Amino acid sequence: MIRTAILGASGYVGGELLRLLAAHPELRATKVFGESKAGRPVAETHPHLAAAYAGSFAKFDETALANVDLVFAALPHGHSQAIAQAILDRGIPFVDLGADFRLDDAETYERWYGNAHEAPALLETFVYGIPELNRAAIRGAKAVAAAGCYATAAILALKPLVDSGLVNSESLIVDAASGVSGAGREAKEATGFSTVDGNFAAYGLLSHRHTAEMEMALGATVLFTPHLVPMTRGILATCYGEATGSGDPLEALKGAYAGEPFVHVTDASPATKWVSGSNGVQVTARYDERTGRVLALSAIDNLGKGAAGQMVQCANLMLGLEETAGLTAIGVYP
Amino acid sequence: MIRTAILGASGYVGGELLRLLAAHPELRATKVFGESKAGRPVAETHPHLAAAYAGSFAKFDETALANVDLVFAALPHGHSQAIAQAILDRGIPFVDLGADFRLDDAETYERWYGNAHEAPALLETFVYGIPELNRAAIRGAKAVAAAGCYATAAILALKPLVDSGLVNSESLIVDAASGVSGAGREAKEATGFSTVDGNFAAYGLLSHRHTAEMEMALGATVLFTPHLVPMTRGILATCYGEATGSGDPLEALKGAYAGEPFVHVTDASPATKWVSGSNGVQVTARYDERTGRVLALSAIDNLGKGAAGQMVQCANLMLGLEETAGLTAIGVYP
Amino acid sequence: MIRTAILGASGYVGGELLRLLAAHPELRATKVFGESKAGRPVAETHPHLAAAYAGSFAKFDETALANVDLVFAALPHGHSQAIAQAILDRGIPFVDLGADFRLDDAETYERWYGNAHEAPALLETFVYGIPELNRAAIRGAKAVAAAGCYATAAILALKPLVDSGLVNSESLIVDAASGVSGAGREAKEATGFSTVDGNFAAYGLLSHRHTAEMEMALGATVLFTPHLVPMTRGILATCYGEATGSGDPLEALKGAYAGEPFVHVTDASPATKWVSGSNGVQVTARYDERTGRVLALSAIDNLGKGAAGQMVQCANLMLGLEETAGLTAIGVYP
Amino acid sequence: MIRTAILGASGYVGGELLRLLAAHPELRATKVFGESKAGRPVAETHPHLAAAYAGSFAKFDETALANVDLVFAALPHGHSQAIAQAILDRGIPFVDLGADFRLDDAETYERWYGNAHEAPALLETFVYGIPELNRAAIRGAKAVAAAGCYATAAILALKPLVDSGLVNSESLIVDAASGVSGAGREAKEATGFSTVDGNFAAYGLLSHRHTAEMEMALGATVLFTPHLVPMTRGILATCYGEATGSGDPLEALKGAYAGEPFVHVTDASPATKWVSGSNGVQVTARYDERTGRVLALSAIDNLGKGAAGQMVQCANLMLGLEETAGLTAIGVYP
Repeated sequence: MIRTAILGASGYVGGELLRLLAAHPELRATKVFGESKAGRPVAETHPHLAAAYAGSFAKFDETALANVDLVFAALPHGHSQAIAQAILDRGIPFVDLGADFRLDDAETYERWYGNAHEAPALLETFVYGIPELNRAAIRGAKAVAAAGCYATAAILALKPLVDSGLVNSESLIVDAASGVSGAGREAKEATGFSTVDGNFAAYGLLSHRHTAEMEMALGATVLFTPHLVPMTRGILATCYGEATGSGDPLEALKGAYAGEPFVHVTDASPATKWVSGSNGVQVTARYDERTGRVLALSAIDNLGKGAAGQMVQCANLMLGLEETAGLTAIGVYP
Repeated sequence: MIRTAILGASGYVGGELLRLLAAHPELRATKVFGESKAGRPVAETHPHLAAAYAGSFAKFDETALANVDLVFAALPHGHSQAIAQAILDRGIPFVDLGADFRLDDAETYERWYGNAHEAPALLETFVYGIPELNRAAIRGAKAVAAAGCYATAAILALKPLVDSGLVNSESLIVDAASGVSGAGREAKEATGFSTVDGNFAAYGLLSHRHTAEMEMALGATVLFTPHLVPMTRGILATCYGEATGSGDPLEALKGAYAGEPFVHVTDASPATKWVSGSNGVQVTARYDERTGRVLALSAIDNLGKGAAGQMVQCANLMLGLEETAGLTAIGVYP
Repeated sequence: MIRTAILGASGYVGGELLRLLAAHPELRATKVFGESKAGRPVAETHPHLAAAYAGSFAKFDETALANVDLVFAALPHGHSQAIAQAILDRGIPFVDLGADFRLDDAETYERWYGNAHEAPALLETFVYGIPELNRAAIRGAKAVAAAGCYATAAILALKPLVDSGLVNSESLIVDAASGVSGAGREAKEATGFSTVDGNFAAYGLLSHRHTAEMEMALGATVLFTPHLVPMTRGILATCYGEATGSGDPLEALKGAYAGEPFVHVTDASPATKWVSGSNGVQVTARYDERTGRVLALSAIDNLGKGAAGQMVQCANLMLGLEETAGLTAIGVYP
Repeated sequence: MIRTAILGASGYVGGELLRLLAAHPELRATKVFGESKAGRPVAETHPHLAAAYAGSFAKFDETALANVDLVFAALPHGHSQAIAQAILDRGIPFVDLGADFRLDDAETYERWYGNAHEAPALLETFVYGIPELNRAAIRGAKAVAAAGCYATAAILALKPLVDSGLVNSESLIVDAASGVSGAGREAKEATGFSTVDGNFAAYGLLSHRHTAEMEMALGATVLFTPHLVPMTRGILATCYGEATGSGDPLEALKGAYAGEPFVHVTDASPATKWVSGSNGVQVTARYDERTGRVLALSAIDNLGKGAAGQMVQCANLMLGLEETAGLTAIGVYP
């Protein structure tokens, strides 16, 4: 049994981690930290876990890490910068979902996040966490910054097309849409039921921070527009690029993802519900002769492959476990 | 490995059975029958199963049962009456989800279903399938008629209260609401998105057929009103009875369900989403001194404990397996 | 042109009042008060009004009532007790949606609301506002306490049945369900999209405050259970009573509501979406010979007939206008 | 009173026309044709109209047009080609919503619709119906082909930017999303509640027929990807173009739409729910210096400005009425 701590366990990603670990053959959630709900029963916040976790959330305390083999953090943006050094100093493998350590350099971080990075020296310590991109680096890493949900969807759709030179990397467009759980658990009018139900809109025009991750991981220029969908889970990325020739992008995806356990290349148009509740990804692509464009689409569950699922996948690699351990559950449909 | 056949595998319950069996330690879906989709890939109809089932639906053929250890049927109402004898003649354990063999006698069947029963002699062969009610009988049975979704929810909320004499069994009211998947996969205007979205209504006023099951299993008179909720999965039963005294119905539930692996008695008001995607049940009850009534509520997933989950639970018992085998997955939330 | 002030204009009921008044032939919203959004543009909070209201919310100020012909208040519970006297002292007709002045006596108020009433002397000044119940009293009133949304639905379904003696008034059950806008605009985790979507549950078990209104208006004992539906607007009340004979309750409804402009008695099972966005009510009823019960159902829009629509209907009566003025719009469907 | 006939009155657009005409100061729906529901009460199909239309659908019969002043047709694609000549021969103004007469030439029609046009000689008789584009031509027209829903949204967002030379017309991308009512009333598994709820996907990849309208009206090359949103009404078009300079596209929109009664240019990001149930349009645009792109967005109600609302707007112009007659209702929110 491998003991893990979860920081930020009271949020949606934290709840999904607890759900995944409850079915994991080796990892256990032995420390369940949740600052805002410390002392309250886990099942009150995560009612689906009523049978699995009788305990309560604890207040974070570094000394509690003494008996922990790996740390998962799903904290609000910015919090990891203050605690990463302490975790790494203890030599504990660390999988962070925050945006804090995803980017390569402090300057890009500051440009997109609007404030100076508090721990720039650690940026190069963290490996960007999308196993399909950089599995080898994750295997040897002590610190992984799991990718953002939108970034994961867009990068998985586009990376093989950029790498194979089928699209011009100077003018990519990512038009994506997310379920509301991506905005987190905190009560806000913008994510209230009456606001979102029957509504569809874009937000963060020209300025969403996941743009920086996409550009870094793809080595490309990206214009990214996120939208909010009246559904709880799921991200669809609809991506556009200028074709550099008439090569078949679907074949490029099939080649790139042959053997990947979680990526399914489909001839159909991927739908978010097909992977809901799972770590799966569905991707497709088309070359449009009429306009000289490439269209690529991918669907993930933002809390699965876009967050907790990918965190567990990275942890499995870091710990030398089977990469798919605890992640084989098929999504729930309909 | 225990080989099972699924009849009606192209419907929603069929898809849920396939999902559950893919994670079951012993049962396998070796024959996947789907009349209306015979010859078509399973993943086209059940896109969440893309990675798990590469095969296609087969047309039903009795001879194909030769190498099968158990049959699951999730067919439209009425179909099981024609095939049950053939399955039983082969000595194959049979778990049927149809309403065909749930009732005790042909007369009650005809009164509620409007036509004469085609195989009345088999009615006593089938055991009514709610393990929490009649576990022992299911263990020894060769044929089980798994309970209806609404009936399961209402019976689990009320049975301990009726049995303990806390409510008057002559005047029970079951006011329940279901997600749309309970109406099946067939395209109908009444279950179209534009009809259901933003809408809430009762249907089948005074005449829903699950009433008969509830009355049989509870030994009571029941007025049942079903409603359609704009959600995909889930049933909530809100049940009312006249209190016979001032005993605490919540304690009665706790006593009755102590040790039950799937029933969680809660002090809170159960919500369908807390058990969505699982075989779980959440129940509660209150005594209202002001009106002399008992209020009991239960939440299930209509495709889980209300259908496929309960079928697998029954199959596990019939085959002498661990009752919870393949059913321990926590539901997906939010 | 008749000048009205709206207190609490930044909430959902306030927004609906603004929408209705924009199409009213005589009433105008000349003072738009919204404490929490004072100084902010109305269109920012009510984006559907972008073209109709260029102005901003004002902070409430009694002196601003000098040029006002009628006051609408849609304030959080309790606020009206502090300001009613000042409005009445100025002789301005007042339509209040708060629960503050709906009940007959201060004792009942305290029992259900948990605190002493601050202006008990005014309780008898206010007329309970359901025109189909007490039109004449509203016509002559200077102060009307518009009924609660659940209460309106339940009372309209049951009142003719109680009055005609078709049901036993000692044992009524009201099982009702509401869209989320009924919980108001304030951001709460319980009404967040991710919480409500795909979820159905009861709340306020045995203790919802609208019970008191129902009992007062019906002269009956009522057990009331409210539920939250994953939809924005609409209330369905499913009501049960013991039949005192075998009279036809549907005929009783048809008789009672003949000539009513907003109540449509239907043979079908009413659905909330049929009246969404309107001041309409759809009701039906059935006698169940089998169980000796009467079943009555009604559907309204909680923001329409359940709030702003009924307020305008009351105002029209109080001011001697056509009762239907500004309320003839057909609901939006689908 | 101006007498109109509605062909295809039993569909969603037909129901919306009936709703709008019920509140129109001059137009009346005197002939209500619905082939598939002929003889059935209108209120059975359009339950929100229960109070407004006591009559039944009629079977279409040319002679019934004798006393009609204008014809609205909202028929399935292809049907108008067979009946247009007869209507025009009678000299009756005709507003068609079908795609049959929207395009300029029969060749483009055949390329996108896959079959030869049956009445190519009439193509030039019909004026393309978006008043903000070609108001003068509609005023004098006897036949108007109201624009498609997606096309209306995209064209209103992009036309001023193309016309002012702010974007390169050779490489436009329209990424749009629609509520499910846009797929019509017919029951289909693809638009069933259980399929759509909690799901988001693109469809018609590279081949949606509205592309042809957009290209014709914009004089541009367009790559268009439609998506299906789990909501009933609304279309959002998110449009991308290469900037030709650094001019401000928002100012271009404000200039183009100054004085337009239904188009609201906003600094915010338009949301479909802000115009739901109305004939309104909300548009915005941004220049992205970083990528040299222009982003333009528009929101409409697909059944309002995208269908029935625009049809009434066109009819008003053709008949010399006030353009806004019957269309001033504010949308319903939330």
